[in-house]
Amino acid sequence: MHGIAFNLAAGSGEIHYVTVLLLSVAAILGVARLLGEIAQRYGQPSILGELLAGIILGPTLLGAIWPEGYNYLFEANVDGSRARLVLDGFITLSATLLLLVAGLEVDLSVAWRQGKAALLVALLGMAIPFAMGFCVAWFMPDLLAVPDALPDNWRLAFAIFVGIAVSITALPIIAKILIDLNIFKADLGMLIMSAAIMNDLAGWMGFAVVMALITPVTDAVEGATGGGGGNGIGMTLALTFGFIILTLTAGRWAIHRMLPFIQAYGSWPGAVIAFVIVITLLCAALTEYIGIHAIFGAFIAGVAIGDSFHLRESTRETIHNFISSIFAPIFFGSIGVYINFVTAFDPIAVIIVLLIAFGGKIGGCYFAARLSKLPKRESMAVGFGMAAQGTMGVILGQLALNQELISEELFVAIIIAGLATSLVSGPGILRSLQRKQAKKLPDLLTDKHWVSELKGRDPRGVIGELATVAAPLCKMPAEDLYQAAWRRERMMHTGMGHGLAVPHARIDGLKQSIVVVGRSRIGVDFDAPDGQPARIICLLLTPLDDPTSQLDLLRMIAEAFENPLRRTKVLAAEKYTEFLAALKLPVEEMKEKEREGESQPTSSPAEETDSDR
Amino acid sequence: MHGIAFNLAAGSGEIHYVTVLLLSVAAILGVARLLGEIAQRYGQPSILGELLAGIILGPTLLGAIWPEGYNYLFEANVDGSRARLVLDGFITLSATLLLLVAGLEVDLSVAWRQGKAALLVALLGMAIPFAMGFCVAWFMPDLLAVPDALPDNWRLAFAIFVGIAVSITALPIIAKILIDLNIFKADLGMLIMSAAIMNDLAGWMGFAVVMALITPVTDAVEGATGGGGGNGIGMTLALTFGFIILTLTAGRWAIHRMLPFIQAYGSWPGAVIAFVIVITLLCAALTEYIGIHAIFGAFIAGVAIGDSFHLRESTRETIHNFISSIFAPIFFGSIGVYINFVTAFDPIAVIIVLLIAFGGKIGGCYFAARLSKLPKRESMAVGFGMAAQGTMGVILGQLALNQELISEELFVAIIIAGLATSLVSGPGILRSLQRKQAKKLPDLLTDKHWVSELKGRDPRGVIGELATVAAPLCKMPAEDLYQAAWRRERMMHTGMGHGLAVPHARIDGLKQSIVVVGRSRIGVDFDAPDGQPARIICLLLTPLDDPTSQLDLLRMIAEAFENPLRRTKVLAAEKYTEFLAALKLPVEEMKEKEREGESQPTSSPAEETDSDR
Repeated sequence: MHGIAFNLAAGSGEIHYVTVLLLSVAAILGVARLLGEIAQRYGQPSILGELLAGIILGPTLLGAIWPEGYNYLFEANVDGSRARLVLDGFITLSATLLLLVAGLEVDLSVAWRQGKAALLVALLGMAIPFAMGFCVAWFMPDLLAVPDALPDNWRLAFAIFVGIAVSITALPIIAKILIDLNIFKADLGMLIMSAAIMNDLAGWMGFAVVMALITPVTDAVEGATGGGGGNGIGMTLALTFGFIILTLTAGRWAIHRMLPFIQAYGSWPGAVIAFVIVITLLCAALTEYIGIHAIFGAFIAGVAIGDSFHLRESTRETIHNFISSIFAPIFFGSIGVYINFVTAFDPIAVIIVLLIAFGGKIGGCYFAARLSKLPKRESMAVGFGMAAQGTMGVILGQLALNQELISEELFVAIIIAGLATSLVSGPGILRSLQRKQAKKLPDLLTDKHWVSELKGRDPRGVIGELATVAAPLCKMPAEDLYQAAWRRERMMHTGMGHGLAVPHARIDGLKQSIVVVGRSRIGVDFDAPDGQPARIICLLLTPLDDPTSQLDLLRMIAEAFENPLRRTKVLAAEKYTEFLAALKLPVEEMKEKEREGESQPTSSPAEETDSDR
Repeated sequence: MHGIAFNLAAGSGEIHYVTVLLLSVAAILGVARLLGEIAQRYGQPSILGELLAGIILGPTLLGAIWPEGYNYLFEANVDGSRARLVLDGFITLSATLLLLVAGLEVDLSVAWRQGKAALLVALLGMAIPFAMGFCVAWFMPDLLAVPDALPDNWRLAFAIFVGIAVSITALPIIAKILIDLNIFKADLGMLIMSAAIMNDLAGWMGFAVVMALITPVTDAVEGATGGGGGNGIGMTLALTFGFIILTLTAGRWAIHRMLPFIQAYGSWPGAVIAFVIVITLLCAALTEYIGIHAIFGAFIAGVAIGDSFHLRESTRETIHNFISSIFAPIFFGSIGVYINFVTAFDPIAVIIVLLIAFGGKIGGCYFAARLSKLPKRESMAVGFGMAAQGTMGVILGQLALNQELISEELFVAIIIAGLATSLVSGPGILRSLQRKQAKKLPDLLTDKHWVSELKGRDPRGVIGELATVAAPLCKMPAEDLYQAAWRRERMMHTGMGHGLAVPHARIDGLKQSIVVVGRSRIGVDFDAPDGQPARIICLLLTPLDDPTSQLDLLRMIAEAFENPLRRTKVLAAEKYTEFLAALKLPVEEMKEKEREGESQPTSSPAEETDSDR
């Protein structure tokens, strides 16, 4: 209907543009989610899988082996195609909403409370890699595949951008790693989070400077469009800082006042969600108009909104869930769709960015932590914790690429560095602290650990059956396992009530803990306190030299069966997948609801749900 | 970056297109939500307010009084502007997701179970208005402001479309009305729902026929694009019915099998939500490619997905919440943005469409219900229940307008009829059944019903204070109210435990029930079973000649305080808005969680949340 201007340029794309648009969104979302899930299953951040999806769907793979399919899906061969324009607009909106979520995670009060140590880590951890990145970009820009057409007056912006790109941290990824490692609420975790928050804020303000430096030039080229006026950069910066200060003071106050009003008179939770999104879009439009990018406004809006304790935990969670599961995969999945990672791979740029991101960042933070009198191991952990730059590096890089401030080669290097730092961060912290990652019950299970129909009618028979299943997993004779478990069982029965029994034993020479689960349709009497026969029996085998893991596992299993709803579903499971689905029923989420209203903005809701995995 | 083709056409729109896009989405979403909330507050469907938002933001109002603002916001003056293209694409996606939600509400098994009566109501209730609409459109198209340029071979499509537009029902609105009236699960409610489901399915299939009739012509004009092939209409219809049958059999089976797998291995709830949306987008792309519209595929996908009892109630709710609170306002709010409701208002078309929609629909359904031996009053209720066509009429009309099958004049008439039928439906049912609408506690309260600091230290003093507040609301002397309540209180104290007391009285000559709530900081001893002093005291005054409403209100208040979390928040409230917000805390939602897993797809989750209002 409105497409008159495009018929000539777009050709067939005009007629079937809705088909192409729906297919491309479905392809990006579907593949990105799938690979993101797989990445998470192997303990990696989902952004790894999501970026990979773009590489698969883009010119790097699909475009190379089946160009027709690639061209149809993303209309890469049609200049200014309508489907692609809409997809681009949709990706911009996705990025904006993504930054809203990132902003919601920033808790200013936490950052203030941590005081000097966090400030030092944030400052040095940013300053050292920034200086390194800046110097390389300023003095040796060719090493970083600087675009040929870069105007002379953009060189400063280019250098500042590189400095920021290698020194920024990815708050959401760091929070997730700390939660997974169970040190989020420990002192060390709070120190890292606080420093990361300050780092994030400083990084984004620096980015505003970069945008201010390059925007007036664009305006001059395209013809002034109001806004900036005479002395562009100064004006843009003044407006930006005015915006930040107003939003974080008066805006924050107004939002805090309006939220209870909306919750009282509006429908739940729709009214609050819509309010949050409208505020975000307005702030985004404002910063876009000022000349820095829309997502900067969305980020500041998120900080202002997330600070109000009137924002209920469940609303936060709904927003986070929807954006993380839909808009994040669309944004990160789309990155690779227009870039060829093979032809744009420049080994020198990759190596330099990697060196600065790792050396400068980890080194700087380690140095700062040592200055704050932290022990060596903890200082190393701080360094690794601050290193993860995944999401933010990628978002910044995408913006700079769109502005043609950087080349595709440097963008690819930034993506690789962002991924590498995020992958190394978690294991790095663990190694520094010499800890092992706590495992969740579902992590220990596969369908080989499951017996859907136990035949035994007494504890002895059932333990025998389970030992037989466990034997190949333990690589030990079933008889030994059975004897050990039965010896323990004879001392005191292990029925825990509610239809659950947990026979267990420590086994000499066992390498790692093994849990085998069986379901008994008839029920077996394990002498439970409530007299009920056990219908789910978990055999727990742990290494002899590891006394804590048995207790940990017992606690985990008991917790998994605590919730009546989950118990009912577990007992009703016929197949392993049904059992696993029941086991993963988000009880965490129900607990969340009870705590609702307590203000704990840093512990982002989705991460707490995630930690259930 | 990709905008080379547009610089000439788009002018300033190109540079600030992100600003304009963000602003226009924020304006539509913000105003539509606000007016939708207000509509709901006055017991009207939210679509009323959402449509009004478009009329305010569009040429009808904003464009008339401040054309510059309107032109900037929606770039109405820039042909093929980029912001507007992206907004259009976004609206298409919104409509697609909206139909997913509508499809999720269709429960085929409910429809089958109701049998003959529902089938008769669905058939006659559709056939009679359809025949009327078809005949008018076929024989007197000029009365319906037929477009001048309508090709001769589109006349059949036009007549069928008009028939469908006046005979279709809006399942989501009907479900909401029935739930609000508390007859959703009664026999009558199920009969109406079943008939509406069949009506919906038949209507959408008829719409597929309309699209098939007009699509080949478009293709021929624009140059064949594969797909259809030689004998267009037959092929399109065959493909359409093939798609429906495959999706509702094999597709449904596959989805049902895959859901537990995704819930077992994927993250929660993101993986399931993404899965649902990807399936929907793929089905939508397929139907768009076939030549019927994308939203048809989304609707059928919703039916297939919603049918699986593996889809958890809470996932359904998250999807429903997000789509209803974001995408529905954007879609309905955008309707009026490009149409002038004043210049496109054709009184003849409006009157004819209204006559058929009311007379044909209510009459046809009444007639069918009488044939099925329902009593007169109930038959009238069925007629009114089936009449609501709000959302669906609007969506269909928008599509037909985009295809240039109908004129703006007819579209405006369809919107007015859709709104009018939706507004009349609920009150019509109530009148037919001679019932009064059950009120919820928050509906009875305003800040005039609230005393934030009671000074009395004994029941007598507190009741006196509350009676003074109630007096102007009842338009009766405070002394009379006090005497009546204190007489009752002396017989037996009304402390209910948990810090709640509910003194009450029936008052001769009182027109309607009045509840006044006071908060006592120190607590007053109302002799509660748990011995706790009352800190929230509700004075309940009901008409003498209405014995049931007192019991209803007592039950409602008790329920409102049942949940410990809500109680804590209510007791902590300092101001009326905080009190109201606490009272509306969605306990319903927590109950939902407990019931999770039971399959009750018809009772759509959001409606159950809505009924909390």
